[in-house]
Amino acid sequence: MNSIDKLAELFQKFPGIGKRQARRFVYFLLHKDNIYIQKLINEIANIKKEINQCKECYRFYPENGKSLCPICIQDTGIKQLMIVEKDADLENVHKTNLYEGKYFVLGGFIASHDKKKSYARTEQLLDKIKRDIENKELDEVIFGLSISPEAEHTRMRLYNMIHENYPDLIFSTLGRGLSSGTELEYSDIETLKYALESRITQNKKQNI
Amino acid sequence: MNSIDKLAELFQKFPGIGKRQARRFVYFLLHKDNIYIQKLINEIANIKKEINQCKECYRFYPENGKSLCPICIQDTGIKQLMIVEKDADLENVHKTNLYEGKYFVLGGFIASHDKKKSYARTEQLLDKIKRDIENKELDEVIFGLSISPEAEHTRMRLYNMIHENYPDLIFSTLGRGLSSGTELEYSDIETLKYALESRITQNKKQNI
Amino acid sequence: MNSIDKLAELFQKFPGIGKRQARRFVYFLLHKDNIYIQKLINEIANIKKEINQCKECYRFYPENGKSLCPICIQDTGIKQLMIVEKDADLENVHKTNLYEGKYFVLGGFIASHDKKKSYARTEQLLDKIKRDIENKELDEVIFGLSISPEAEHTRMRLYNMIHENYPDLIFSTLGRGLSSGTELEYSDIETLKYALESRITQNKKQNI
Amino acid sequence: MNSIDKLAELFQKFPGIGKRQARRFVYFLLHKDNIYIQKLINEIANIKKEINQCKECYRFYPENGKSLCPICIQDTGIKQLMIVEKDADLENVHKTNLYEGKYFVLGGFIASHDKKKSYARTEQLLDKIKRDIENKELDEVIFGLSISPEAEHTRMRLYNMIHENYPDLIFSTLGRGLSSGTELEYSDIETLKYALESRITQNKKQNI
Repeated sequence: MNSIDKLAELFQKFPGIGKRQARRFVYFLLHKDNIYIQKLINEIANIKKEINQCKECYRFYPENGKSLCPICIQDTGIKQLMIVEKDADLENVHKTNLYEGKYFVLGGFIASHDKKKSYARTEQLLDKIKRDIENKELDEVIFGLSISPEAEHTRMRLYNMIHENYPDLIFSTLGRGLSSGTELEYSDIETLKYALESRITQNKKQNI
Repeated sequence: MNSIDKLAELFQKFPGIGKRQARRFVYFLLHKDNIYIQKLINEIANIKKEINQCKECYRFYPENGKSLCPICIQDTGIKQLMIVEKDADLENVHKTNLYEGKYFVLGGFIASHDKKKSYARTEQLLDKIKRDIENKELDEVIFGLSISPEAEHTRMRLYNMIHENYPDLIFSTLGRGLSSGTELEYSDIETLKYALESRITQNKKQNI
Repeated sequence: MNSIDKLAELFQKFPGIGKRQARRFVYFLLHKDNIYIQKLINEIANIKKEINQCKECYRFYPENGKSLCPICIQDTGIKQLMIVEKDADLENVHKTNLYEGKYFVLGGFIASHDKKKSYARTEQLLDKIKRDIENKELDEVIFGLSISPEAEHTRMRLYNMIHENYPDLIFSTLGRGLSSGTELEYSDIETLKYALESRITQNKKQNI
Repeated sequence: MNSIDKLAELFQKFPGIGKRQARRFVYFLLHKDNIYIQKLINEIANIKKEINQCKECYRFYPENGKSLCPICIQDTGIKQLMIVEKDADLENVHKTNLYEGKYFVLGGFIASHDKKKSYARTEQLLDKIKRDIENKELDEVIFGLSISPEAEHTRMRLYNMIHENYPDLIFSTLGRGLSSGTELEYSDIETLKYALESRITQNKKQNI
C-alpha cells in the first residue's frame, strides 16, 4: 500500500469522513505547498505537546504551566458545577459568558444497556463532588446535557448515585421549552409541557 | 388545455406542491377507482359546507348547530387567552390536554415591513380582549407563537397595542429552553440563556 | 370523524403525502375561496369523464371522439414501438419530439419475486406486438425503461417472451453512458463501460 | 491563538470542512493515542516525499525510482490519450480496467470568463500531443471530462486549439446516455437525445 492509500486510511478514522472524502483530503494535501504541510504537521504534533487535559474537569486546554485549566483555577465564588458530555458542549456554553460556575466533562453517556461500553468518568465525577463538598465549594450540580434518551438515562443514574449522600446538595437541569427556530406546529408534547409550565411573564416580575 | 393540465395547474397551488408532483397527483387520480374519486369530491365539497370558522377564536371546526366552537363554548373557569398563528398550532397544543384556557387564531404575523400585507386579525383580537375583560373572563394573555423574528415582532407589536389599556392584564410567553432532541453543542446563545435562567430544580421545590 | 379528518385521510393516499402535509392541504382548502374549490371539484370529476385510456397503448389522453390516442392514430411511417413503464415516462420522451414511433405503457415492472404482484400489462403487450407484426407495422421494439434492477429484469423477461416468435424483429435499448450532470469521479463501472464503448467521434463520421 | 485554534484553522482549508467539523477533528485528535498521531504526521510528511507528479501525464504516483508513472511507462500499443480533469477521475476510470491508453490530467477547466483563473495545463497538453504525434504514438484524443457547462466549454476550446494542426488525429468524447439509476421520467432532453441516437441493438450485431 502506497502513501496515498495509507494516508487516506488514516483520514477515514476522522469523524464523519468516508472513503471518498478521505481520498479527497489526500489529493488536497498533494496540491498544497510545503509551507502549509509543515504547519499542519507541526500543529498536529503541538496539540499533543501543548494541550493538557485538566485534572479537575477533564477538559482540554493549552498548557500554561499550571496543573489546572483557567476555568477551574479562577475563583468566581459561584458554587455551581455543570456536568457536560464533551468539550464542544463546554465551549459552546462558556463562550456565552452566561455561566460563572465550574464544569465537569463526563466524556460520554452511561449506556442503558450494560453491554455498551461507557466512556463516562463516573468515578472521577463522584470524587470531585466529594472533594468540592468537603471544601464547601459546591451548592448546586447542574446537568448540562443534551436532550436525548441517552442523556436522560445518564442524568437519572448520576442523580441516583449522588443525591442520597448529599441531602443539602441542589440538583438542577437546564430549562426546557421552545428553542430558537421552533415551530409550534411541530413541537412535541414534552417540549410543549415545559413551555407551558415555565411561561415567562412579560410585565410583572421578570422581563424579556 | 386539457383536463390533465387544468387539474395539474390547480394542484400546483397546494402548499409545497410543484409542477412534477402536481402531475403525479393527476396520474394518481386517473388510476384510482370511481369510489375514491367520488369520496374525494364529496369531502372537498363538505369541508366548505360542514366546517365553520368560529366567530370568537377564528379556528375552523365542524358545524354543530352552535355559533361558537367547542373550545370557546366550554366554561373551564381558566381565564387565559392563548394567541396562536394558525389552526395547526392550536391543534398541536390542544391535543396535549395541557392547556385549559381559550385560543385566538391570529391568521398571520404582523410584518416588520409595511409593504408586506399582513393577514393578522389584529382588530378582531383587540375587540375580543376588550369584550373578555369587560366580562371579567380574562386574566392572562399568552403568546403561543413559534420562535422566529417575525413572531417576535408580532408579539412586540401586539403587546404594545394592548397592555397600556389594561394595566392589570398579565402577558406571558411560552417558556424558552432546550427542546426535545437539542444538542447542547449547537444551541445558540439565546436558547442557552433561557435554559440557564429557567433551570429546573430536581429535588427541592419543583420535581421533573 | 369530522370532515377535516376525513378529507385529510383521503389526501394521505396521494403519492408522497404524509399525515402532516395532508392536514396542511385541508387547511389550505379551508382558506380558499369557493371559486377555486368549485374548479377543483369540477376538474377532478372531469378527468374521469374526459380522460380516456387508449386501447392500443394504454396511455391517458383527453377524450376526443376517437377510440385511439393521437399518437397511436397518427401514421408517421416509423415502425418502432417503445415500451415505457408509465405515462410520465412517455410524456417526457414525447415532448422532446425526438421519437416518431409508437409507445406502449406497460403499467409496472415484472417483479423478480413471484410473490410481488405485477401491474405489467404483459398480455396486452404480446397481443399488440402480434397485431402490429401481422399488419407489417413493426420492425423494432425499443425498451424505454429507466435504469434499475427491476427494469432490467422486466426487459429480460419481455425479451425472452417475445423474440423467439419473431426472428426478424429488432430489439433495442436506450443508449447508456454519461448523463447530464454526471461527474466522472463518481460514475460506476457499468456507466463507464458503456461510455467508453459508445464514444462519439467528433471530427470523422458523426458530429456532436 | 492556542494550538487547538491554530489546528482547527488549518483543517478549515480541507475541502468541504467548515468551522464546526474542523474543531471536531481537533478534539478527535486530542482523544487519539500517540501512535495514531505519529502515524498521521509521518504519512502527511511522506506523501510529499514519496509521491511524485508524473512529468508526462501530471498524475500523482508513488515514487519508484522512475521519472514516469507506471501508466505512462507501460507500452500497451493502444495509441489513445484520455484527457481528464483530475486524479480522482483518472483513478475511477483506471480501476475499471476497461481502458488501456494513456491519460493526461488537465488540472482544472478552462473558464468561460477570462477573469476566472484557470488551472488547466493547456501548454503542457499541447506539447505532449505534439510529442506523441511526432513519435507516432497517438491516433485518438478522448475527452474524459464530466458533463457540465464548464467541461463542455473546456472541451470545445481544447478541440479548437488542437485539431487544425493535426487533420488525421481523431477526437472523441465519452458516450452519453442513460446512466445507472436514471429515471426516464426525469431525464433531460439532451440525455434522451443521446440515449435514442445511440440505441443498443440486442439481437443483431451488438449484444448487451
